[in-house]
Amino acid sequence: MISAQQLRAVLARIDADLEQSLARLFDFLRIPSISTDAAYKEHCVSAAKFVAADLAGIGFDASIRPTPGHPVVLAKSKNEAAQSSAPRVLFYGHYDVQPVDPLELWDTPPFAPRIAELPDGRKIIVARGACDDKGQVMTFIEACRAFKAVTGALPLPVTMLIEGEEESGSQHLPAFVREHARELKQDLALVCDTSMWDPSTPMVTTSLRGLLYEEVRIACADRDLHSGLFGGAAQNPLRVLAGILGNMHDGRGRVTIPGFYDGVKDPAPAMRQELSRLDLTPENFLGPVGLKVPAGEKDRLLIEQIATRPTAEINGMLGGYTGEGSKTVIPAKAMAKVSFRLVAGQDPERVRANFREFVRERLPPDAKAEFTALAEAAGIEIPFDSAALAKARAGLLEEWGKPAVTVGEGGTIPIVSDFKRVLDMDTIMVGFALDDDRVHSPNEKYDLRSFHKGTRSWARILAALAA
Amino acid sequence: MISAQQLRAVLARIDADLEQSLARLFDFLRIPSISTDAAYKEHCVSAAKFVAADLAGIGFDASIRPTPGHPVVLAKSKNEAAQSSAPRVLFYGHYDVQPVDPLELWDTPPFAPRIAELPDGRKIIVARGACDDKGQVMTFIEACRAFKAVTGALPLPVTMLIEGEEESGSQHLPAFVREHARELKQDLALVCDTSMWDPSTPMVTTSLRGLLYEEVRIACADRDLHSGLFGGAAQNPLRVLAGILGNMHDGRGRVTIPGFYDGVKDPAPAMRQELSRLDLTPENFLGPVGLKVPAGEKDRLLIEQIATRPTAEINGMLGGYTGEGSKTVIPAKAMAKVSFRLVAGQDPERVRANFREFVRERLPPDAKAEFTALAEAAGIEIPFDSAALAKARAGLLEEWGKPAVTVGEGGTIPIVSDFKRVLDMDTIMVGFALDDDRVHSPNEKYDLRSFHKGTRSWARILAALAA
Repeated sequence: MISAQQLRAVLARIDADLEQSLARLFDFLRIPSISTDAAYKEHCVSAAKFVAADLAGIGFDASIRPTPGHPVVLAKSKNEAAQSSAPRVLFYGHYDVQPVDPLELWDTPPFAPRIAELPDGRKIIVARGACDDKGQVMTFIEACRAFKAVTGALPLPVTMLIEGEEESGSQHLPAFVREHARELKQDLALVCDTSMWDPSTPMVTTSLRGLLYEEVRIACADRDLHSGLFGGAAQNPLRVLAGILGNMHDGRGRVTIPGFYDGVKDPAPAMRQELSRLDLTPENFLGPVGLKVPAGEKDRLLIEQIATRPTAEINGMLGGYTGEGSKTVIPAKAMAKVSFRLVAGQDPERVRANFREFVRERLPPDAKAEFTALAEAAGIEIPFDSAALAKARAGLLEEWGKPAVTVGEGGTIPIVSDFKRVLDMDTIMVGFALDDDRVHSPNEKYDLRSFHKGTRSWARILAALAA
Repeated sequence: MISAQQLRAVLARIDADLEQSLARLFDFLRIPSISTDAAYKEHCVSAAKFVAADLAGIGFDASIRPTPGHPVVLAKSKNEAAQSSAPRVLFYGHYDVQPVDPLELWDTPPFAPRIAELPDGRKIIVARGACDDKGQVMTFIEACRAFKAVTGALPLPVTMLIEGEEESGSQHLPAFVREHARELKQDLALVCDTSMWDPSTPMVTTSLRGLLYEEVRIACADRDLHSGLFGGAAQNPLRVLAGILGNMHDGRGRVTIPGFYDGVKDPAPAMRQELSRLDLTPENFLGPVGLKVPAGEKDRLLIEQIATRPTAEINGMLGGYTGEGSKTVIPAKAMAKVSFRLVAGQDPERVRANFREFVRERLPPDAKAEFTALAEAAGIEIPFDSAALAKARAGLLEEWGKPAVTVGEGGTIPIVSDFKRVLDMDTIMVGFALDDDRVHSPNEKYDLRSFHKGTRSWARILAALAA
C-alpha cells in the first residue's frame, strides 16, 4: 500500500531525476544491439549486461541467462515490503533493436542519441531504440528506481524479463518461458511496447489477435495442359482454389468456415460502448491508404473489425501464366497463402482443422490439396472487468487527466499469447509511443514527454496495483 | 464432273507417281523455313519460291505476295473445264515450320528428310515439317498434279493460299485476307493441317472453338497493408478476385456469366448420335494426364465438353506474397488471366462485354477493375447437313473404307475464323496427321501411308465436290 503522500514523493523524485534518467537511457541507446545481424552479437551481450547491472543497482537479483541465441535478462526484486494482497507482476520488454538501414537517411548516427526539438516545440529523443523498446523499457525501470529511492522498496514484487531477440522473431523465447515457467509465473504481466491512442490520450491494449497461417496447394493434372485441347474437361486448380477461397466469406462479411466463430465472445456492453465513442472513422483510418468502406462484418464497428473480430485473408495466390500477353494454359497446380487473425476463445488448432476440412470438403474430383502450417498463435484478451485493468486505467487517468482508451490490437505479439497459454497469466499492455515515432525507420524518436510522463504513469500504475 | 473412270486413272497416277511425289516433298523439306527465327528469313523466301514454282509448273497462275513479314504464295488455277455448278475452293496451308531445338534430340538432321521404318512396320517420313504442314500441303498439291496429268485440268477452280507465318502466329495474314478479299473469296475453303481420328479412321473437323482472352487487374488500397493492423477492414483484392472468378461456374459446371450461352446451339441430333458413338472416354482422354473425371458441364458428353461447348478458364492468377514462409500482407492489387473458348453463334465482343460487366457488377466498394483485351477469335462450325461436308465424307469413306468421324476441335485456328467472318466462307478441315507424329518436337514424322492415302483422299474429295 502506497500512500498518496508517498506517491507524490515518488513522482517528484522522477521529475527531479529526469536529467539522470535521460543520461542512463542514452548510455543504453549507445549500444548497437541489433539482434538480426550476427556482427552485433557482442553488442547484444553488452546491452543485456547494461540492463542486468542497472537492475542490480536498484536492488534486483539480476542475472543474464543464456539461450541458443541472444541472452535473456531475468531479474527479481528482493525483500519487498509488499502486502501479500499485492499482485506479483512480470514486466516484459526487449533490449534489442531493429537494423538501421538505410543509414544515409538518418540525420545523425543512429547510436548517438540526442535531444532535438520539433517545429511544434515538442522535445524528442532521437536514436535507434529511443522508443522501441529501450525508451519504453526504461520508463518502467525508472519508475522502479524512484520507488526504491523514496520508499526503499517496490510497491509490489516485480520480475523483469528483458529479451534480446524480439526484433528477430523471439525465436528462443517460447522455449525459455516453458523452461523457466516457475520463475516467470506471476499474477500479472506488464508490457511497455505499445502506443498512445493519440498524443494526449493514454491507451491500454486489452486484447491481441492471434495468427494462424496456412499455405494450401491444389494439384490436378500431372502437367500443364492446353486449354484448346483440354479446356472444358480438365479440372483447373485455379478454378478450384478461387471457388473455395472466394467463398470463405458470405455477403455480410462473415467467415463461412464451419465452427470458425466457436468461442468468440461479444465485447462486454460497457467495452462496446467505449469503443463506439472512439473517433475511429473510415475517413481517418482507411482514407490514408486510399480506401473508404470497411470490408469486414457489416454488423460490427470498424474498431471491432480491426481489433476484436477474427478475420480470414488470402495473403497470396499464384498459379498458371502470369507474364505478359496470353497463354492458353490450364495449370497443373495453384497455391495460396491464407491467414486468420484469431481472438480470445478461438482454438488455433481447431481453426486450422476446420479450414483444412473446409477446403477438402469442397474439392471436386481430380483435385488434391496439400497444406503447410506456417504460424500459430492464439488471440488473448484481458477481461474488461479485470481489477488490474481498472487500476491501471485509474493510474493513467491521474497522470493524463483523460480516461485511457481500452482497445484491442489487431496484430499479434506471440509472447503475450504464451504468457496466457503457458503461464496462465493476463497481460496489461501500456505504452507511450506515438504514431510519428518512426519505429523501425530512420530517425526513430521518442517524445521526451512520453519518456517522462510514461515513467510517472508506471509509478501511478504500480501504486494503484499495490493498493 | 469427273467420271469414275477418270478418278480411277487419277488414283492410279498418284500410286505410280509416289516416288516422284516423295522426291518433291523431300526437296521442300530440305528448306529450313523456320519463320520465328530472323536468321532463316531467306529460307522462308526460298520455300515460298519452291511452292510458287511447283504450282506454276502444274498450270497455276502463281505469285509471291509480300507482307511486312514472310511472303504469301497466292496461286489460281487457269482455264478449268469445270462446270459452273462446281464450287470454287480456296486451299490454305503454310510453308513455314517450327524451330528444331533441342537439336541434340533429333536422330538425324531435321532438314535432311529420310524414310525410316517403325518397329511395327510402318514406313515414315522423318524431317521437320514432314507432317506440319509441308507433308500435308503436298497431299493436296499432288492430288492437283495428278488431275492435271490425267485429265488436263482440275475438277474445280482452285485458289491456293500458302502462308509463311503460321508457326509464329500468322501475324500479317488477317490484314492480307482483308486486303485480298476479292481474290480469296471462294465458295468453300479447304485446310489440310489436322489429324486422323485414329490411324485407320479419317476425320473431318467440322468446328473450331474461338478464343477470347482477358487480363483483369483488381486494385484496392494504394499500398500493401499489414493484416494485423488492417485485416478485417481493408478490402482484399485477392478475396475480390477469387470471389468473382470462383463463382464463374455453377455446381453443374455451367458458366454463370449472364448471356454467356446466347447463340450457342445444340448439335444436330445426328451429329450428337455420331459423337456419342466415339470411343472418347475419360480413361483414354484424361487418364494419360493424371485425371479421371470430366470437369465440364455435367449434362454434356466428354467430346462436347472439349470440342463443341464454350468454356471459361482461369489461365493465371497472381497477387500478394507467394514466396517461402509467411507474410501477413493484404495486397494492394491482384491479377488474373481469364480465357473463354467460344463456339459458333457466340459473339466474342458480347462475351467480352458480358464478362467485364460480370466482374464490375460484383466489385465491392473500394475495389477497382481494369481489363486488357488479349485475344479474340470467333468459333466456327460447318453445318452438319452441309452438302460439301457430305461430299468430303463420301470421298474419305471410299478411300479408307470407314466413315469419317466428324468432330469439333477444341482449339482455335484464327485464319479459319477470318475465312468465315471476313470472307463469309465455310472451311472443311481434313488432315492425315497421327497422334505419334511428334509435331513441333524432335524427330517429327509423317506416315508414308498418310502422305499416299492423303493424296488419294484429296483426289476423291475434289472429284466428289465437283460432282
